[in-house]
Amino acid sequence: GAQGNGGSDGDSFPLAELRVRKVLRESARDKTIFLHGQVNGVSGDGTDAVVILEKTPFQEENISDLLKRHTKLQLQMTNDIYSTYLLYPPPQLNEIKTTVVYPATEKHLQKYLRQEVYLIRETGEDYKNISLPFIQSQSFSIQWVYNILEKKAEADRIIYENPNPSDGFVLIPDFKWNQKQLDDLYLIAISHHREIKSLRDLTSEHLPLLRNILEEGKGAILKHFAVAGSQLRIYLHYQPSYYHLHVHFTALSYDAPGCSVERAHLLSDVIDNLELDSQYYQKRALTFPLRADEALLKKFQEAGKA
Amino acid sequence: GAQGNGGSDGDSFPLAELRVRKVLRESARDKTIFLHGQVNGVSGDGTDAVVILEKTPFQEENISDLLKRHTKLQLQMTNDIYSTYLLYPPPQLNEIKTTVVYPATEKHLQKYLRQEVYLIRETGEDYKNISLPFIQSQSFSIQWVYNILEKKAEADRIIYENPNPSDGFVLIPDFKWNQKQLDDLYLIAISHHREIKSLRDLTSEHLPLLRNILEEGKGAILKHFAVAGSQLRIYLHYQPSYYHLHVHFTALSYDAPGCSVERAHLLSDVIDNLELDSQYYQKRALTFPLRADEALLKKFQEAGKA
Repeated sequence: GAQGNGGSDGDSFPLAELRVRKVLRESARDKTIFLHGQVNGVSGDGTDAVVILEKTPFQEENISDLLKRHTKLQLQMTNDIYSTYLLYPPPQLNEIKTTVVYPATEKHLQKYLRQEVYLIRETGEDYKNISLPFIQSQSFSIQWVYNILEKKAEADRIIYENPNPSDGFVLIPDFKWNQKQLDDLYLIAISHHREIKSLRDLTSEHLPLLRNILEEGKGAILKHFAVAGSQLRIYLHYQPSYYHLHVHFTALSYDAPGCSVERAHLLSDVIDNLELDSQYYQKRALTFPLRADEALLKKFQEAGKA
Repeated sequence: GAQGNGGSDGDSFPLAELRVRKVLRESARDKTIFLHGQVNGVSGDGTDAVVILEKTPFQEENISDLLKRHTKLQLQMTNDIYSTYLLYPPPQLNEIKTTVVYPATEKHLQKYLRQEVYLIRETGEDYKNISLPFIQSQSFSIQWVYNILEKKAEADRIIYENPNPSDGFVLIPDFKWNQKQLDDLYLIAISHHREIKSLRDLTSEHLPLLRNILEEGKGAILKHFAVAGSQLRIYLHYQPSYYHLHVHFTALSYDAPGCSVERAHLLSDVIDNLELDSQYYQKRALTFPLRADEALLKKFQEAGKA
């Protein structure tokens, strides 16, 4: 147990003896931190551990105690009717959830290690000279997409289909959604048209397809799930995770991964921009994030563009 | 001050005397809770306050202390190499950020109350006929913005300033960021120009201002915080929460509230669109979310547009 801290359980992990080697990942929003640490064994050699700390959500029943029984309240800033403080609560009202993986292997350490992310601003020229050749050189299989379109897989999961080969699509729940609650509703529309890799390939000739996805997609979701179009976030990713045109439908109230402004493009905006200028997405610079370990980042770095 | 808790600042809000009336909103993911409370005045009548509690992100330099100096470590579950505990740290290592709005009006209470959210697709005409008259009829005070621009408040928090009255701005850390870790870096650039309400007012005449904010903002953040521009998400909100032009700078790795595609507009995209067409933001339809209780939603409903 943790020496000198009387309260520790005798059987527990020797947290106080952990030597922190590295912060693997942290999230200021979630109030979590992932640590790689080592504990000395009897023989004196270090054994790896992953320790995950997470502040706990507030519990309504403890709030009054928290406000009344703080040990200190320190003013930080005041401006007009707004002020901020640091409140120091007693330990029993402010615990930290601690998860330990021990002993941890190299695989565990890699799993929790965060990659740096960089924003790329890709011009139309950059797309032609860097991204497109890279995409073409990759042979990412999208057989699973064709299996869905041809009803060779997941046919029973299809919510709606417009079978037109150029303007049609299949609407299917995303794997991330278990369909048990509407709170995190997530569906994908996959175009029957097979020659549109991404947003970059769209021109005004694709407006009928895009309008079908927008209008028929909303209609199908209203019918099947009783969720109105005004409560849906409908968007494309750029870069997409696979190069066959697809559109994401998520519940507006759901803070879905990948819906932030540097990755997502509202389908309504895409339609309006194509109505304005058929070549909008061939000409315009587009911003997207790349992780440090992604091969496309290296291509941009080699070209002196990142 | 908070009676019986010796550490409190005498000038501070009487937190210990707050009677909690209602939980306005909470987020288990963010570890935040928004409270409506009342404080008894000398006359005994209650004055409304909003109190926002937020657990703070972990700070790397305190982690070793946190592991060593916990007051108690309580085993919860163990399974193979995995185990979970509750760790009770000493108060000084586990503060809670407390934001007070006092006195609070009904509008403040409504602002923080959780509501259903609906997407609006506002055309240029809708803006002129519905949104603009509504914005003009409201008299939300932005005195606190002028206080910053005139150095009457928060002057010591300013990170960078370009003092030009038409193309200049002030860069200041957002209230939500405690500046103790870069993980959730959040700054705001506030324009000295006072006649730009939002994205809708921007034309090519504002390109010098926008380019200054983008380039000088990135430069100042690199200099002060050693965070490169490629690791920043730089964007405007539409609708904004106050109608004086401001730009958000957040760490790319930080999943900041309000950075999703239905609310945020990348400053780089705004600049490119204005270069393409000076009237882009007067003409284009813009999508944004409105909560069920927002008066602007009613205006759109009355006009048959929502």
